[in-house]
Order: sequence, then structure tokens, then C-alpha cells
Amino acid sequence: MTYRVGIINVTGFAGMEAARLLWSHPSAQLVAATGRSLAGKKLREAFPHLAVYRDLVIGDEIEDDVDIVMSALPTAASAEACAPWVRKGIPTIDIAADFRLRDPGAYEEWFGQPHPAPDLLEQAVYGLPELNRDRIKAAKLVANPGCYPATSLLALAPAMAEGLIEDSVVVDAKSGVSGAGRGTGGGFAYADVNEDVSAYKIANHNHQPEIAQELGALREGPQPRVTFVPHLVPMTRGIHATCYAPLRRDVSRDEVFRLYRDFYGDAPFTAVVESPPHTKHTLGNNMCLVHPVVDERNGMLVVAGVLDNLVKGAAGQAIENMNLMLGLPQDAGLNIPAVFP
Amino acid sequence: MTYRVGIINVTGFAGMEAARLLWSHPSAQLVAATGRSLAGKKLREAFPHLAVYRDLVIGDEIEDDVDIVMSALPTAASAEACAPWVRKGIPTIDIAADFRLRDPGAYEEWFGQPHPAPDLLEQAVYGLPELNRDRIKAAKLVANPGCYPATSLLALAPAMAEGLIEDSVVVDAKSGVSGAGRGTGGGFAYADVNEDVSAYKIANHNHQPEIAQELGALREGPQPRVTFVPHLVPMTRGIHATCYAPLRRDVSRDEVFRLYRDFYGDAPFTAVVESPPHTKHTLGNNMCLVHPVVDERNGMLVVAGVLDNLVKGAAGQAIENMNLMLGLPQDAGLNIPAVFP
Amino acid sequence: MTYRVGIINVTGFAGMEAARLLWSHPSAQLVAATGRSLAGKKLREAFPHLAVYRDLVIGDEIEDDVDIVMSALPTAASAEACAPWVRKGIPTIDIAADFRLRDPGAYEEWFGQPHPAPDLLEQAVYGLPELNRDRIKAAKLVANPGCYPATSLLALAPAMAEGLIEDSVVVDAKSGVSGAGRGTGGGFAYADVNEDVSAYKIANHNHQPEIAQELGALREGPQPRVTFVPHLVPMTRGIHATCYAPLRRDVSRDEVFRLYRDFYGDAPFTAVVESPPHTKHTLGNNMCLVHPVVDERNGMLVVAGVLDNLVKGAAGQAIENMNLMLGLPQDAGLNIPAVFP
Amino acid sequence: MTYRVGIINVTGFAGMEAARLLWSHPSAQLVAATGRSLAGKKLREAFPHLAVYRDLVIGDEIEDDVDIVMSALPTAASAEACAPWVRKGIPTIDIAADFRLRDPGAYEEWFGQPHPAPDLLEQAVYGLPELNRDRIKAAKLVANPGCYPATSLLALAPAMAEGLIEDSVVVDAKSGVSGAGRGTGGGFAYADVNEDVSAYKIANHNHQPEIAQELGALREGPQPRVTFVPHLVPMTRGIHATCYAPLRRDVSRDEVFRLYRDFYGDAPFTAVVESPPHTKHTLGNNMCLVHPVVDERNGMLVVAGVLDNLVKGAAGQAIENMNLMLGLPQDAGLNIPAVFP
Repeated sequence: MTYRVGIINVTGFAGMEAARLLWSHPSAQLVAATGRSLAGKKLREAFPHLAVYRDLVIGDEIEDDVDIVMSALPTAASAEACAPWVRKGIPTIDIAADFRLRDPGAYEEWFGQPHPAPDLLEQAVYGLPELNRDRIKAAKLVANPGCYPATSLLALAPAMAEGLIEDSVVVDAKSGVSGAGRGTGGGFAYADVNEDVSAYKIANHNHQPEIAQELGALREGPQPRVTFVPHLVPMTRGIHATCYAPLRRDVSRDEVFRLYRDFYGDAPFTAVVESPPHTKHTLGNNMCLVHPVVDERNGMLVVAGVLDNLVKGAAGQAIENMNLMLGLPQDAGLNIPAVFP
Repeated sequence: MTYRVGIINVTGFAGMEAARLLWSHPSAQLVAATGRSLAGKKLREAFPHLAVYRDLVIGDEIEDDVDIVMSALPTAASAEACAPWVRKGIPTIDIAADFRLRDPGAYEEWFGQPHPAPDLLEQAVYGLPELNRDRIKAAKLVANPGCYPATSLLALAPAMAEGLIEDSVVVDAKSGVSGAGRGTGGGFAYADVNEDVSAYKIANHNHQPEIAQELGALREGPQPRVTFVPHLVPMTRGIHATCYAPLRRDVSRDEVFRLYRDFYGDAPFTAVVESPPHTKHTLGNNMCLVHPVVDERNGMLVVAGVLDNLVKGAAGQAIENMNLMLGLPQDAGLNIPAVFP
Repeated sequence: MTYRVGIINVTGFAGMEAARLLWSHPSAQLVAATGRSLAGKKLREAFPHLAVYRDLVIGDEIEDDVDIVMSALPTAASAEACAPWVRKGIPTIDIAADFRLRDPGAYEEWFGQPHPAPDLLEQAVYGLPELNRDRIKAAKLVANPGCYPATSLLALAPAMAEGLIEDSVVVDAKSGVSGAGRGTGGGFAYADVNEDVSAYKIANHNHQPEIAQELGALREGPQPRVTFVPHLVPMTRGIHATCYAPLRRDVSRDEVFRLYRDFYGDAPFTAVVESPPHTKHTLGNNMCLVHPVVDERNGMLVVAGVLDNLVKGAAGQAIENMNLMLGLPQDAGLNIPAVFP
Repeated sequence: MTYRVGIINVTGFAGMEAARLLWSHPSAQLVAATGRSLAGKKLREAFPHLAVYRDLVIGDEIEDDVDIVMSALPTAASAEACAPWVRKGIPTIDIAADFRLRDPGAYEEWFGQPHPAPDLLEQAVYGLPELNRDRIKAAKLVANPGCYPATSLLALAPAMAEGLIEDSVVVDAKSGVSGAGRGTGGGFAYADVNEDVSAYKIANHNHQPEIAQELGALREGPQPRVTFVPHLVPMTRGIHATCYAPLRRDVSRDEVFRLYRDFYGDAPFTAVVESPPHTKHTLGNNMCLVHPVVDERNGMLVVAGVLDNLVKGAAGQAIENMNLMLGLPQDAGLNIPAVFP
């Protein structure tokens, strides 16, 4: 059987990446895609790299019968677009941030507006299969993780779940520009970004509460303190999160590796690697590479995590969630090499 | 049926790209791969982006039964490695330059040494399916085109075949650094390449005779004059060839487009596009995009052609040739979107 | 004596680069700078890299007494802003394109509007000192060359002036994005430009008539045919023009070098170099490097020329012209190393 | 008076950058430069960007009379080359790491060999003028800071000196590749670095003890714990250090800014800025930009510091030290704009 997939807002980077990845999926097919500014155009005319889609036309609304819906609209608009599908009982994946924070007050604090569909929050499942596989399988509404939280959580989860680290972590993240979306305004011109590194929204990015919430859910007690600083680096794709947490006890490198490998067990897309990982080794595929280091001199755990922000950090993760929600093999359509060099 | 493929020298960029692309092939499987410097290592350990190959070990020699062999060795070494397979009757594709020039004298002139296997030259078929599909289907030894010639020929072939242009063409090509292979010496360090453009081997690159030979084969008469200048630009993948040829008669834009589209007909991997093509729109897939422009003021035909030098310019082309040699659909395993952005 | 300089539109790349270079000038000082969108702001607040200007405030108009004015406004607006200064007898340099084409009809054809100040065209001198030094010294209005024409003319002028080449040339130019100015719209976002090469305005860029006009002025007869194709490459600064022209007679490499070196004689900023030049070797300084090659097989002259589009291609050239107009040493303030790597 | 400067090993990035900057120095002149692999060549032939040096020839040894010597040799070789000059009483600046750690035991631990000239350690002054101006003025041997420590110390010094933060800091640093020197081996090829971020020597880089030593020297008590993780990002120049330290008491943004601004007072090259700084705003000049942020939610001080690793992180710093040692104005030859974009 081939499942029929609809993408709301195929014209952003996450939406078009979902279309790219779905092309090769053995059991799912993109049958409808919206994008108001380009409605009426063929997908292949709007986006030459998707020329394999010979006939698909971008629409205003999803009018076809679909088995599952993914929304890649901006925050708030996404919740509004998702709500009717959820209410109709169609499995829905929100790639935006609307259903990630469980507390509507926190949403209002960080996003500056009341939540557009607070009644749906309770049934939303945070879509990181390494932490929530079974709940995702049963969910009708999945909140796809943010790209920074996905990287940070996969880097820190085993240590936090095992009580290895203090409740105070620093996440220093470096991202390529595609994480900011397709807009070209304010600082994303080539001449500004090239040969430059800078931080932004220092300790004030709305991915911070998402990291804290999900780390906190890994064990008893209040949410940990998370100091999160994102940086823009001159590349298109990729996130490198370097995470720092004081160790609560002495631990050897081997023990940490064992703990990490046990934690991820048979998870198909998170690998614990022996040397500092390169974002480039995940370009275009759904892998997250995690590398823990014990800084014995200072009693600190340092974990480097990398992924492609548009794949495991967005569209690939959404398809992995789709697979689970539809009862397909978790890695269907995603078990592919990265593009290197 | 699944065909068994061997790659000689999987450790260069072309070889590892062939491994990447073969992974998703529906009817062929990489079963043996050599690479002396890394022999004994698992492919996934040598190249983290190929971690999907869980067990394949890099060998010294291809010892398995294989149905087809691709060599991505350097020039001269490649001919030596190919020869025994050809003589055994195993279909063989040389991704290096050894079997491209039909004249062993030209080989010696441009490569500075006698041809290592001149007796095989006669049966070698130049592996550009847009020009030679039927001959490739019947070949036992295919000379995979160089990345610059592939781009240039696809940009100029229709005009040359139809007698639209003079026998004197300029090809100005811009290439990402992966075309130079995995070596890090002499000018390929990041600090040298970044924020730089420079030409090299001006009018003296050994892809020049290859372009002239194959353009010449498109019509009666002696080989055309080809002034070929390659440039290095700061990117990893991609070639942009801008080709200039004086028109022999007045011609309209529409007529040129019609001629180009007729010429390529149902070729699956060369598209004639309406606006200047971007190398980035072919990153990671097997497409060549061609855009002809009539410069009426000067009676000049200008054609821009782009492709990914590691795919349609090397490994993807090799797989397309493999498909034809094995009687598979020409686009098997290659009909995929590009990776953008 | 210190001359007082005013810059109209300091907020574009050319204007701010003029400010950067003037800082180190021994005999000239930036005393007034306009830029309407940022009027009222200190230069150092608007542009952190110019923090050395502790007190200069961006104004609406140049109200100070100035000895010379440079305009870096967009086309048409620039002519309007320059005209009053020229009429007052203040030496004026137009960095925009308004006074480059001598024929107002050609201006209208290529820029799509009537010339804003046709009465001033006659007195405008084309500001390329390698060709027009004495006339620049006597001028009150100098048309600063376009970045592409500056590179192309310096690459081709000796051969054209000596009658070495045919009247039919191809100029294939590769430019960093800063040539397009500070705008971030339409294709200049990092995610679009990075890992991409593409041509634009193929054989239809308004620098083409400028190249043809000035090449034509080097010898008797009608303007030569110029096929000009600009390309965008992923870097911020730098132009590489590769120029192709059929030779009218046999000529040796040595003769060509002698001819080029004689032609440039003691010109301080154009060097004839022995190997293919790198744009990076001119980053931030006023040099143009030129490298001629005789393609004997095809009877073609190939010349590679490089410069920094914001310096010798814009602001540095303007200061060189300023020096000549004010009777200062031609290289005052400009005799500096490039920034490498 | 013009002081005569000698550079030992002008052929590395730091050495050639010193040559670039010295060119514009009003009171100092480069008169001798060594570089064994290129000895006998003119500087301008070896390095086209330094073509302004028309006659200087690279030598084997400094044979001229010089007033001051800078060594940019690799570690250990540098101490050996500096020692004779120090012993002769010639002011000497070691741009390498040999005289930075005061404890020869620490040197042996981190550099894997005994110190080559332990008897000189006592007189060596750590050459960061923001901390040690008066001692540098009186020194005969200055240890020029490492690029990472320079950035980190300038970001953290005011807070550490004032007792604002705990004795446990995290420094997450992002560097362009030129910090690794001119070598092209192991991971610095363009195809490896482009579109990639990765950490290296996690919590094990030999700049870590340098940071700890100099932070410790700012107040009573043992050295603080420093977890230092460097990252390679795809750019040529620039360092961004993001520093994290738990606050020992509540403090407002205003108080922190006041404290930082008081601390740096009239230091000419460290500026406390109001928004997250960009490495690109310091490209080519000697500025360090520092931006402190109070993360109130977590009681953490975050400070972003940026500089050009080859200027304030190496050669510019050396010239600033030279100025102090020779009694020149501290900013002589260094008060220049950055190159942007």
C-alpha cells in the first residue's frame, strides 16, 4: 500500500526537503502540497531541484484525500492549519513549534501570543523517537522537534536520564543558515554571512524552553537550567551542538560510551561515534552523530552532537515520525548515505 | 535479479560517490570495493557518510564474483586495472581518462606516457548516452567521460551536430574543487581556495582533446578548434561550462530551443531550461541542465551547461552506463531530486 | 595640505569602501558622507568595521565645504546628484554608470531611460588611468569604470591597441556577490549563492557597451564585437575576467608579454604576471593582475585579469582618479598589500 | 626615527601577516625576513599579495642590524630561535607558544617535550596589553598570546578580576582555518572544511592551560577550572569565543557593561559592544569586540568575544607589543578599519 501524504507549505526549506525525501519513500507518496505565494505553479517550475515531480501542482489548500498531513508553516499559522486535520482524525505532524511546549503559558511567554489551539496540546506527542517511540506510534498529532533541541537532546539525553550530570547545562550551538528559512532579509545575505560567525538571541532563543522541558521529562524533578546560545556559521546545512554539563560523579570514558550506546540501542538514526563528528557527514540524511567526552580535569561532561537541520532536524524527522504513526518500518525511505564531500 | 558490482578504488571522490549512489539502486549492489591505502578497513569506518554499508570491507583486489566493474583509479593505473576484466569479458567502465581518446598518439601527447593498453582502445565506447546510447548498450568497455567534457559536449552537441556553429569554440568552465580529487596538496587547502577564483592549465588541459574529438564525431570533417580554460571556484561540487561559438547563420531563440529539445528528446538526464541554470540545482543528482542563448548583436551562440561533477560528471554517469550495459532501465537508481539548498 | 572629500551615499558597498580606504590617505580626509536611510547616525554605529571614524555623522546632503565629491548612488540618481557639483566646478567622480557611455542614445538603450544630464557627457572623462591618465588629470567630471569593464579592459587593451587581435572578443567574467551591492533580495541570500555558480544577463549586461566603447577607442575603426557573460560565484569580493580573442597573426609568448609590459610601463596598479592570477591576491587593494596566454593550437589569445571589484573595480579606482584630479601622487593612500589569506 | 624589524619565519600565516601590517607602520620597517624553504626568493615572488615589497629577499638567517625581532616559527623551534636575540639584549617577541606558560612542567605536560630555554621563562612577559601594558613596556622578551586565549581572556578578564564569576568557566571557540597555519594536510582541504563544523581536541587543547593561567593571575587563589573546546568553521579568518561562567551574585546588564567598560578604559583595541559581535567586523584589523550578556534565568554570565586570529590573535598583537616595547604609541600602524564585506 502507498500512503498519500499532504504537505502544507511546501515552499519553505523544511517543506521542500520533505518533498525531496518523500520522492524515494517506498510506501508513501506526496500527493498534495500547498504554498500560497506559488499556488498554481508546478512544483518543478518553482523548484528546479525537484524536477522529478513532473506533474504535481502547488495548491492553495489540500483538497485531495490524504492519509497524513505535515505542516511546515510558520509558528501560529501552523497550529491553525493543523487543527482541522487533527479534529478530522487525520494523523498530523507539525514541523513548526506550536505543539512542542506543553504549557500554553510558556508558549505565550516565548512566542509572544496566546496559543492558537490550546485544546490540542494534551494529545500532542513530542516527536523524537529516540525518547518517545511508542507514544509517537499511538499519536494523532506529533510535534516535530526544533532543529536545535533535536541535536541537544540527543547529545544530552542519556546522561540526563541516568542522573550522570547536574541540572545545569550549557548548549552552544552552531547552525548553517538554512535553519533560518528561505527569507533573505536581515543578515542572511551572502555578503553578510560569508566569512563570519556570530551569536544571536543569546540565552533568549525560544528553543531553550523546549530543551529544558524535554530534558526535564527524562527524570524526576523540576526542569534543569539550560543556557542556550545559537550561532550562525557560514554554511547552508548542519547543526553542531556542543553541550556542557558538570558531572555528578567520576565516570570513565568507557562507562559513558556504554551508557550512551545502551541508551540508543537499536535506534536507527542516532550513532555514538568515537571521534568528534562532522556536520558534513550527515548532509542530506537523517543521522545524528553523538560524541561524549569526559573532561576529567574539570569534572565536566562535554558532548558534541551533529545533524542536518533540514533532515533529522526537520523534514527527515517528520518522515520518521510519519513512518511510526502509519505503522511502517521506522527507517523507511530514510536509510540513505549522506552526500559527501 | 540483483547485479553484483565491484568498484576499483572506492577511496577517491568518484569511487565513494559511486558507492553512495549504488546504495539506492533497485537492481545492483556494491559487493566489492578496493582501495589499497585503506584495505582491511570497513567502508563505514573509512567514510562515515557511507555508514549504511554496515559490513563491506575495503579490499586489495576484487576477489568476488562480479557482474560489472568500475574503475576510479588515476590515469594509467586505471587502464592496467581494467584490462584483465575486459579480457575476461566482464563489462567494465573506466571512470578515469584512459580509454577516452581514440588515438594512442594523442594520449601520449596529452598524458605524457604511452597508452597502457592500446589494443583495447578500439572496442572502448565513449560513455555519453545522449550521444552514444546504442553503442554503450553493446559495449564491454566504456570510457566514462571527463567531467568538463560531459558538460561541454551536452552544451554544444546539438548545435554542432546540426551545423549551426563554426568549427571554433571557446569553453570557459568553472569547477568546484572536488573535481581535483581527494588530494590536499598544491593549492587545494581551504585558506587558498576560499574567496578565490583562478584559471589553471589555460588552453592546455587534457580534457581539451576529448572535447574536440567528440564534437568532431558529431559531423563530417576534421575536429573543431576548442579553446578550453578551466577555473577553480570556491565550492565543493558542480561544474558550469559556458560555451561560445560563432553562428553560421541567423537563428531565432525559438529555433535553437526546438533544435536542442529535439536533439535530447527523451534523454532522461539532460534538460533544456529556460533560464540560466544553477550548479546547485543539480547537486547530488544526475541531471545536466543546458541553456542556449543567441547573442544576436554578435552572431554568437552562448550555451551554459551545469552538472554535478561527481554525479553526471563521474559516478552517476558510470551508473547510467552500467544500466545500459546490463539492459536495465537507463535511469534505474538515478531518478532522484537534487539536494537544495 | 589635506583635501576635504565628500561621499554621496556612503551606505552602499562602494561608498563604505571609499570611506575605508580614505582613512589611510595621507593627503585627503573624508569630511562629509550622505546616506538617506541612515542619516543622523554616526558612521561607526551604522558600520562597525569603520569604528575608527569616531565622530563622523551620516548626513542627508553634503553641507560642508569639500574639495572633491564622489557619488556612489545608483544609476540615474547619481547623475542627478553629481550635476550640481560639476556645475559649481567642484571635481566630481561618479562611481555609478551615468557618465561612462558617451552616446546618450546608448545610455537610453541599455539603462531604459533618458540620460539625466546629457549636457555633461561631453566633459566626462572615462576614469581608467592606464588608458587616460592625462585626460583624468585635467577633468572636472570623471566616470569611474564599472568593475567588469575595468577588469576586461585592462586584460585586453594592449592587444587591442596594438592590433594583435580581431574585432571580436569574448569576455567571460566571474564575480563575487558584493558587485551586486548591499541588497539582499532576489538570489543573493547565502543559501542560494553558496555552493553555486550561475550566469546572468547572458550577452545582455549593460557593462557590454562600456567594454566595446573603450576597446574601440584604443584604435581606429568601429567598435569591436564583445560577447560578455557575467557569472556569480560564491565569494564576497573579486572579479576574474577571462578574455578570448582570435589572434590576427602569429605571436610568441615573449612578444605578448613584452607588448603588455611596455603598454603598462609605470602604471602603478596593473601588473603583468607570469602565472594564472588569483582574485584573492588582490583582496582589499588596488591591484589588477593580468596574465596573457597564447593558445597556439587555435590561434587564440586568452587573457586572465583579476581585481577586487570594490577597490580597483570601484572605490580604489575612484581614489586613484581623485589623486590625479587633485595633482597628488597617483598611488597616494593606495600602495598597500592585499589581505591574504 | 624608523625602527628596523626582523621577522623569523615570514612564510607562515602569522609571519606574512606581520609583514603586511608592518608595511603601513609609520615608525617601523621590515628589513629582514627568514623562511628556510623559500630562502633566496623575493618576498613578492613567494607571496603575490605582498608585492609592495619590491626588493626584500627572504633569507636563511637574520643578518641585518635589527632593533627588534619577531619569531613566528613553530613551537620549540621558536624558543631556540629567540634565545640568542634575547641574550644579546634585542627586544624579542615570540608569536609561538614557547614563553606563555610560566611553569616549565606545564609546558612539558602540554607540549610533550622539555622546554627549550627554561632560563628565559622568568623574564618573559605575557603580551596582552589590556592586562599587562606596563610590564610589556619594560620587557625584553614578550610571549605573544595564542589566538584562542587572547579572545577568551579579553571576554572574561573583567568579570574574573572583579570576582563576579565562579572559578569554573566554559570557553566554546569557533575558528577559521588560518589558525591552523599554512599546512594543507589532515582535514584542511577545501572539500573537507567547506559546509562543515566540527570540534577538535575537546577539552584537551594546549591553549587551555594558557587561559587558566592568565585568568588565575587576575585575582588571588588557585587557577580556575577552564573547559575549552575549539571548533573549526568554514571561513579563513576570525575567532568567536563564547564564554560561560556562573555568576556569584545578581548583577544587572548595566552594571556588567559599566564594569567591562571601566576595565578596558582607554585600551585602544578592545571595545565593549551593545549587540552580538561579528568576526567579520574585525577582519584585517586589530580590534577585539566583547559583548557580555547576563542570563538571569540561569545565573550565568555569557560573553561573546571576536577578533581576527591573524591580527589581534597573532601579528597585530605582536606589533602592538612592539610599539609598547619600543616606546611608540600603542596603536601606531594599527588604527585601521576592518575589511568589510
